[in-house]
Amino acid sequence: MIDINSDMGESFGAYVMGDDEALLGYVTSANIACGFHGGDPRTIDATVAHAAARKIAIGAHVSYPDLVGFGRRSLRVSADELITDVLYQIGALEAFCRRHGSAVRYVKAHGALYNDLADNKELAAAFADALVAYGGDLAALVLAGSPAVEVLAKKGVRVVREGFADRGYTAAGRLVPRRQSGALITDPAVVAERGWRISTGAEIEAADGSPLVLEVDSLCVHGDTPGAVELARALRGALAGHSVQVAAFA
Amino acid sequence: MIDINSDMGESFGAYVMGDDEALLGYVTSANIACGFHGGDPRTIDATVAHAAARKIAIGAHVSYPDLVGFGRRSLRVSADELITDVLYQIGALEAFCRRHGSAVRYVKAHGALYNDLADNKELAAAFADALVAYGGDLAALVLAGSPAVEVLAKKGVRVVREGFADRGYTAAGRLVPRRQSGALITDPAVVAERGWRISTGAEIEAADGSPLVLEVDSLCVHGDTPGAVELARALRGALAGHSVQVAAFA
Amino acid sequence: MIDINSDMGESFGAYVMGDDEALLGYVTSANIACGFHGGDPRTIDATVAHAAARKIAIGAHVSYPDLVGFGRRSLRVSADELITDVLYQIGALEAFCRRHGSAVRYVKAHGALYNDLADNKELAAAFADALVAYGGDLAALVLAGSPAVEVLAKKGVRVVREGFADRGYTAAGRLVPRRQSGALITDPAVVAERGWRISTGAEIEAADGSPLVLEVDSLCVHGDTPGAVELARALRGALAGHSVQVAAFA
Amino acid sequence: MIDINSDMGESFGAYVMGDDEALLGYVTSANIACGFHGGDPRTIDATVAHAAARKIAIGAHVSYPDLVGFGRRSLRVSADELITDVLYQIGALEAFCRRHGSAVRYVKAHGALYNDLADNKELAAAFADALVAYGGDLAALVLAGSPAVEVLAKKGVRVVREGFADRGYTAAGRLVPRRQSGALITDPAVVAERGWRISTGAEIEAADGSPLVLEVDSLCVHGDTPGAVELARALRGALAGHSVQVAAFA
Repeated sequence: MIDINSDMGESFGAYVMGDDEALLGYVTSANIACGFHGGDPRTIDATVAHAAARKIAIGAHVSYPDLVGFGRRSLRVSADELITDVLYQIGALEAFCRRHGSAVRYVKAHGALYNDLADNKELAAAFADALVAYGGDLAALVLAGSPAVEVLAKKGVRVVREGFADRGYTAAGRLVPRRQSGALITDPAVVAERGWRISTGAEIEAADGSPLVLEVDSLCVHGDTPGAVELARALRGALAGHSVQVAAFA
Repeated sequence: MIDINSDMGESFGAYVMGDDEALLGYVTSANIACGFHGGDPRTIDATVAHAAARKIAIGAHVSYPDLVGFGRRSLRVSADELITDVLYQIGALEAFCRRHGSAVRYVKAHGALYNDLADNKELAAAFADALVAYGGDLAALVLAGSPAVEVLAKKGVRVVREGFADRGYTAAGRLVPRRQSGALITDPAVVAERGWRISTGAEIEAADGSPLVLEVDSLCVHGDTPGAVELARALRGALAGHSVQVAAFA
Repeated sequence: MIDINSDMGESFGAYVMGDDEALLGYVTSANIACGFHGGDPRTIDATVAHAAARKIAIGAHVSYPDLVGFGRRSLRVSADELITDVLYQIGALEAFCRRHGSAVRYVKAHGALYNDLADNKELAAAFADALVAYGGDLAALVLAGSPAVEVLAKKGVRVVREGFADRGYTAAGRLVPRRQSGALITDPAVVAERGWRISTGAEIEAADGSPLVLEVDSLCVHGDTPGAVELARALRGALAGHSVQVAAFA
Repeated sequence: MIDINSDMGESFGAYVMGDDEALLGYVTSANIACGFHGGDPRTIDATVAHAAARKIAIGAHVSYPDLVGFGRRSLRVSADELITDVLYQIGALEAFCRRHGSAVRYVKAHGALYNDLADNKELAAAFADALVAYGGDLAALVLAGSPAVEVLAKKGVRVVREGFADRGYTAAGRLVPRRQSGALITDPAVVAERGWRISTGAEIEAADGSPLVLEVDSLCVHGDTPGAVELARALRGALAGHSVQVAAFA
């Protein structure tokens, strides 16, 4: 059984990003931008409305405050800055969930914060503190195999381990950085194959050709990559073909 | 019986505004900025912590998105824009209330939005829609005597009528605009006198000298005016001297 | 002889808007966003580089500070606020022109500010004051037939009167508001026809069917409408077919 | 002979920071915020007007884009991002200099960018590229003794080496980080003593007690520290008492 999550609600004002409505047909969890890297109140409202109508689990996709950099640049923040920035974003999203009869179920860090958290235990601890402070048994979606998994678990946060069918992995199980070759996988057939293998605990091939087994609870499908909808469809097909049940973890 | 409210949490990052901690000793309701005209997540967190510790009622002080103008400039927004901007701000504040064992009890519009709402029934209706969408029986603090009072009440929102001991009134019961003379009253003795008169339904003098009686549930003390703390102390003294009980409406 | 201008450089960070490079092949003047409604420093730099390489005249496309609203919402600003906001934006753009061996030749207001200026003489005067304060003989692109034309001319600013081949006009020569039907004309053949008629002083048809003659120095082609490039090509073809010379006014 | 510079124009909208007008009486160079960490267009305009009226040299105080963090947090930017952000800020400031008959003479990085530049040669090179791209023989104010001095000089940028009379130094000639004890010196007598010693090449005492000689062209007086004006006055007095001439480098 596997969850499929995707980033959504990243449009901003007149600026459109992604094809959220189409993707919603293929995912079980929606990571919704909260305004710090994308997502204005109108976009958030519409995205939550669509996700709630389809009974898709809603997560807060929290970011460093960096709209112009789309949250992709590391910012050296203190623990207090991270905790309060995360609380602010979860709360903002929750208001729209209330409007549409839903609730925030989990939190996932976006972009640079996602990567920084995975390896920096102090940041991961602050992230956990924010979730605990918010209450409501929020789960955290973090990179499978990263040190953050244990840091969050020790703080009592339910951890959902995330894998990527459309990203290359190093032999150590980390993502190949976006600027290196092999970072993004765009062939739907390959993505679909990797997706069911990751989901069933079968080996995949790391960037250096070595075999790699990941333990994941949720697969991410990127909404802003070209052909995202097609990838998602291929992935769902492959999972069905290998009798992997797709359901929200939340 | 009267409530005393004040604007708080309007500092932003390194920029300090107001003397919130001192004022908290004199008010029963704290209108806390939510980031659109002032108030960053650290400021909000600290302000909510202080208010919650003192059991002061917390309200969302929502604004047009205009940090550089401190929310004092009218922006022509659609009903949808107002609803979603208000929801976003209430939710963001609520996250900090959850952290500190409190909750958002009411909403007050800030600056230009406060004035625009008072007279524009469409805006007032959208404001009401936001509160209803959020749920939780949020009250609305609006200008006593303004058309907004009825608009909100008809939508089922609990209305708290607000008066100002430190602002001049026109004969029609509206505030003298800030840029006109007589807009601000800074003499603590005069503020205190007007405060207990307003609270007890006694006549005050409008800017043109005519007598004016207001029906108010809450008095506002401005935190950003010079001598705000002294004004608040004088007001509390006068209310006590005239046996007016001071308590949060919420 | 007619100038053709278009809005450019409105992308923002990861958000792409318009097809600037394609449009640059059809215009003689580029209105480049300066960061207040769109246009981050990287986008501005790249847009200026392309325009400068093609020897296209560069103008500052200045806006109210409203990224989330894309500058399409009126904001009540003082004369001093408008002057200083306009100066800031012109200067920011000029830095990139210096880098690429060009210069800011003119200023055009964007969105709500464009419309507000056209009819509000105080705003138009403040706009003129900004251009005079900046110096360098900046021209102003304003709506042909609007009161702003005279206000600016009296302040000594060179006025370039602008017409729209792809927008409907009222009988009084004003633009049909965007939210009304008939506001946008998308048929390339119709746009092309209206374009050469406006350019040669021939009659066009207003929204109510009445005949209308405009005196314009520059035609605007919108870059963010679907099929913008096709419209621009059709327009250029029609102008060539009617022996209208196309050249920058600057 | 020594220059005295100070950070100015850091107020933002309704938020006041520093006492610029008082400090202007003691400095020869004004580092004016450009909007990225502080400084809105009205503040910039007023600050430039005052500096220009007193014939004080004007520099662009450029920052990472981080208003809420007041530019004090490191942001991982690319060379292209730094170059274009710096160009944008210089240009924006220049517009106000044009209005008031002055010009931008130099550039100084603010906060985290100042520190990052001092030690990171790639950032320093990008900073130099921005100044060269802008042209006009802009000087760069950088930390005396830092690697950036040579990087900028090699790129042909005139370097002005900066020292701090009110900051503690490590034995290696670097500033004691703000969060460590001994980072800030607030006793006017000590600041004055250190100021004339640094200016004349006399030894000062580093944080560990070891003797330190700095080669500096400009002394910084912080405008946002308590007692900044008094410090500046004491420093000017001490410099006069030791026959050190105070004049702008520009």
